Amino acid sequence: MKYQSFVSPHTQFYQLTEPFQLESGDYLEQVQVAYRSWGTLNAAGDNAVLICHALTGNADADDWWAPLFGPGCSFDPTTDFILCSNVLGSCYGTTGPTSLDPRTGATYALRFPAITIRDMVHLQAQLLTYLGIRRIKQVVGGSLGGMQVLEWALLYPEWVESIAVIAASGRHSAWCIGLSETQRQAIYADPNWNGGRYNAENLPVNGLAVARMIAMSTYRSWFSFEEKFSRKRQDDLEQPYAIASYLHHQGQKLVERFDANTYIRLTEAMDSHDIGRDRGDYTAILQRIEQPALIVAIESDVLYPPIEQQQLAAGMPRAQLHTLASPHGHDGFLIDMHVLNDVIVTFSRQWELLER
Amino acid sequence: MKYQSFVSPHTQFYQLTEPFQLESGDYLEQVQVAYRSWGTLNAAGDNAVLICHALTGNADADDWWAPLFGPGCSFDPTTDFILCSNVLGSCYGTTGPTSLDPRTGATYALRFPAITIRDMVHLQAQLLTYLGIRRIKQVVGGSLGGMQVLEWALLYPEWVESIAVIAASGRHSAWCIGLSETQRQAIYADPNWNGGRYNAENLPVNGLAVARMIAMSTYRSWFSFEEKFSRKRQDDLEQPYAIASYLHHQGQKLVERFDANTYIRLTEAMDSHDIGRDRGDYTAILQRIEQPALIVAIESDVLYPPIEQQQLAAGMPRAQLHTLASPHGHDGFLIDMHVLNDVIVTFSRQWELLER
Repeated sequence: MKYQSFVSPHTQFYQLTEPFQLESGDYLEQVQVAYRSWGTLNAAGDNAVLICHALTGNADADDWWAPLFGPGCSFDPTTDFILCSNVLGSCYGTTGPTSLDPRTGATYALRFPAITIRDMVHLQAQLLTYLGIRRIKQVVGGSLGGMQVLEWALLYPEWVESIAVIAASGRHSAWCIGLSETQRQAIYADPNWNGGRYNAENLPVNGLAVARMIAMSTYRSWFSFEEKFSRKRQDDLEQPYAIASYLHHQGQKLVERFDANTYIRLTEAMDSHDIGRDRGDYTAILQRIEQPALIVAIESDVLYPPIEQQQLAAGMPRAQLHTLASPHGHDGFLIDMHVLNDVIVTFSRQWELLER
Repeated sequence: MKYQSFVSPHTQFYQLTEPFQLESGDYLEQVQVAYRSWGTLNAAGDNAVLICHALTGNADADDWWAPLFGPGCSFDPTTDFILCSNVLGSCYGTTGPTSLDPRTGATYALRFPAITIRDMVHLQAQLLTYLGIRRIKQVVGGSLGGMQVLEWALLYPEWVESIAVIAASGRHSAWCIGLSETQRQAIYADPNWNGGRYNAENLPVNGLAVARMIAMSTYRSWFSFEEKFSRKRQDDLEQPYAIASYLHHQGQKLVERFDANTYIRLTEAMDSHDIGRDRGDYTAILQRIEQPALIVAIESDVLYPPIEQQQLAAGMPRAQLHTLASPHGHDGFLIDMHVLNDVIVTFSRQWELLER
């Protein structure tokens, strides 16, 4: 598994002994979960904090969310047992399209079935059960991570004490689905894609790079690009504008560390996100999320605009909305991390979660 | 020329007798301009109104801007001589990448040189001279059209009495350049693209369709997609979401009527747009636009956001800003046309342009 090399040496693995049933009715055999943990689970098993990662993320939350870790911070290993697992369907150690299908002995590729956010959460739940976690003080995540947080609150209400949902919605919008589909089409248009049956020598790198270029623009904002690049030029005949080079670089970085089929299956899972699906009226379902909830919007987020978090917060009985005044767009939760840390710490203190 | 079939039968053609010099120093021979006109030029030659079209537009302004045409409307053929020409580098009758290069006898394709907005305006100016136009009451355009309007005001200040710039900027932003480049990369990634040397049997349709899907999203808004599509599903296993089908349809429609190399050259021209280029300080150049100017922003425009038109209006001595309360994004100027018509009519009346 090529992307194994990106899994940090601190990663632990949990192997399911039973087949894992998906929401679709399909099931997966010999599922493996890659995870990281920080701190120690107490005897009561009630000091866990769960971090859910975003689309191309991994279990190394102390890397990509480093400023949120530390004594007195959102994630404090001196008092809490912090946990982050690579999501189902990803390529960083948890079973996904790059894994071997034990039923065929070959890589799943696009034979890896369609999955949902709920499937991701149920798999995390099996890990938490295995680890002896009785209560989860907080489930926290941004973007795809925030979708998992909402499903955690609904699927395991007795387990979850509080939630923090950042730059996410309760159901994927037409806007997001359209942009997702456009990115998948960029991959499909690559001659190396071959219906997902590509090999390591001929990866659909151009298509995946275009997908990432589209995504990167939607993760940022007019303001952040203007501030950083404006119309800066450079001595490159192919790419005279600095912003174009930047996006190319982002595309190239992703193709070196991420798999195209994985990108397809995970974006499809995001498109399936709808807390109302097969549960009934969306508004009534929102009202069922009774935990203290921090909902963080990012003022300049064009992908999951603040109206989505306003609607979430308005519909949940114990939610409080905080809007980050970040100019960086959707990626603000990975850029303005010190501010985000303060917001989460304040919320947690308020609910006496840290001071019990 | 394949796209000739899309040129309406009312179209007229003007053939330059001299080589046409480009801003780059390069020149084109035997340049042809396709244009439409409505109404009659008066004896003084001073009742002309010039319409500039957008990226994939053509000279048939009474088609794509129909509600703005008619007695008492923005474009009134009973009093004015209305003119619209297909821009240089396009594929609807004016010389561009799909034309034959008289020097080689073969289609230009990507040997068609890089052009700028100023080149487009200078070519229109030759047409207007040929037609005997002495004064232009108003130059009007949205998006790429708006960029031409600004250059008209600067290149031919004595000629132009007033301008209306809609959903455009004074210089293409990093945000727009990045999204343009991403669209071009989608075309380049198509196996049929072949460095621009494709043939009619194997066009880079998948890449161009992806480019259009990206563009279409940026032309609309979260609100418009949510209102029209939300999470509507349909009985299509390939495309379960209505928004995805819609974007596919838009992609397919474009590849049937537009050329990939043309798309590349015209988006590059847009990226070059900067009224300050080789003229000096941007702010000082803005101040040189002394005509009465209507600047129209669209509240929900994510591509050329209102801050760009606010900056334009603030920097021009006789500009007035109007913000359209349209939820449809950048395309608002092609959707909320009755409101736009009222705004232009009010502006024109105010400057007594219609009542002279």
